[in-house]
Amino acid sequence: MNVVETEISVKTKGELDIIDITDSVEKAVSKTGIKNGIVNVFVPGSTGAVTTTEYEPGLLKDLPNALERIAPRNAYYEHEKMWHDGNGHSHVRASIIGPSITIPVRNGRLRLGTWQQLVFVELDVRPRDRRIVLTCIGE
Amino acid sequence: MNVVETEISVKTKGELDIIDITDSVEKAVSKTGIKNGIVNVFVPGSTGAVTTTEYEPGLLKDLPNALERIAPRNAYYEHEKMWHDGNGHSHVRASIIGPSITIPVRNGRLRLGTWQQLVFVELDVRPRDRRIVLTCIGE
Amino acid sequence: MNVVETEISVKTKGELDIIDITDSVEKAVSKTGIKNGIVNVFVPGSTGAVTTTEYEPGLLKDLPNALERIAPRNAYYEHEKMWHDGNGHSHVRASIIGPSITIPVRNGRLRLGTWQQLVFVELDVRPRDRRIVLTCIGE
Repeated sequence: MNVVETEISVKTKGELDIIDITDSVEKAVSKTGIKNGIVNVFVPGSTGAVTTTEYEPGLLKDLPNALERIAPRNAYYEHEKMWHDGNGHSHVRASIIGPSITIPVRNGRLRLGTWQQLVFVELDVRPRDRRIVLTCIGE
Repeated sequence: MNVVETEISVKTKGELDIIDITDSVEKAVSKTGIKNGIVNVFVPGSTGAVTTTEYEPGLLKDLPNALERIAPRNAYYEHEKMWHDGNGHSHVRASIIGPSITIPVRNGRLRLGTWQQLVFVELDVRPRDRRIVLTCIGE
Repeated sequence: MNVVETEISVKTKGELDIIDITDSVEKAVSKTGIKNGIVNVFVPGSTGAVTTTEYEPGLLKDLPNALERIAPRNAYYEHEKMWHDGNGHSHVRASIIGPSITIPVRNGRLRLGTWQQLVFVELDVRPRDRRIVLTCIGE
């Protein structure tokens, strides 16, 4: 039984870039030597999120439409009064989807569904270099 | 300190069937022999979700009403253009609630609140046979 | 490799009190002696939630505005028919944000971003004394 820490890096193109990180997380897990257990995937930062989806072009537009209903870009945000960085809606969306997901590992692979991919969701209003922190626990 | 993997099965009646899985997860945890630690509950699939709620008939209608505000059934979904399976909203809702929850285990039981149950939320538009993957870590 | 269970207490002032629990969770983790691994933070109860945000006064108003879009206070809730406790919207909001988050621990500290804090979100309609259950796993 071991705990092994690692990280991956992701370059995003800007707001609502949704990136399939399944393969890179699986490679990182594979290097830890842990075959069975869990991997916790965590975004340090308050304008990014992780979740799963079927990674196909349609849903990459549909998910943003729902986020626009929850926290519209053009609504008024108190966050702007102090910071003027135009990303109040980004923060709110990130808090609701969440920065953390824990996924089972089986035989060295992520135990996802066939049509289910692990994604990083860039919610900030500009391209970012993101680090995603992985913690594998298992055998 | 051990990691033990197991699964439960759930038959759902169709869209927005919300099923109390507390007892079946607790039984499965009990069989692992792990008394104290955590259990990760994971849905392989991109149209189902897990969360907690007070399991009473009113909230089983109220939660769907909120999901309808986030991703209305009759909105336009790009997902439909390719797949025509009528479940674009299901995918979006699943990504927002999320497919994964981790719950503390104490003395072999889930450490939930008195009025808090663990639920599987069927978001797909038809009945499904679901497998839910459990990973127990502890002693 | 160890699993250590602990708890923190939080007094909330009422609905939509959002409390920065980063320091108290970090202190509790520090006392467990676990330096590297994860901490699972879990709210027993169905009207509270945990997530992360940049803890500044603006966002403490902006997040509630988004929750009002998802589950408005003045909408009709079936939950009221039986319970008449005026908190149907609280339950729905709690199910969507979620009662559980797992955070990496590195060198005895939470591995959050610089502008990212761990918060408890009081969604119930009255002040509450909350216990938050922590499970640390690591070395």
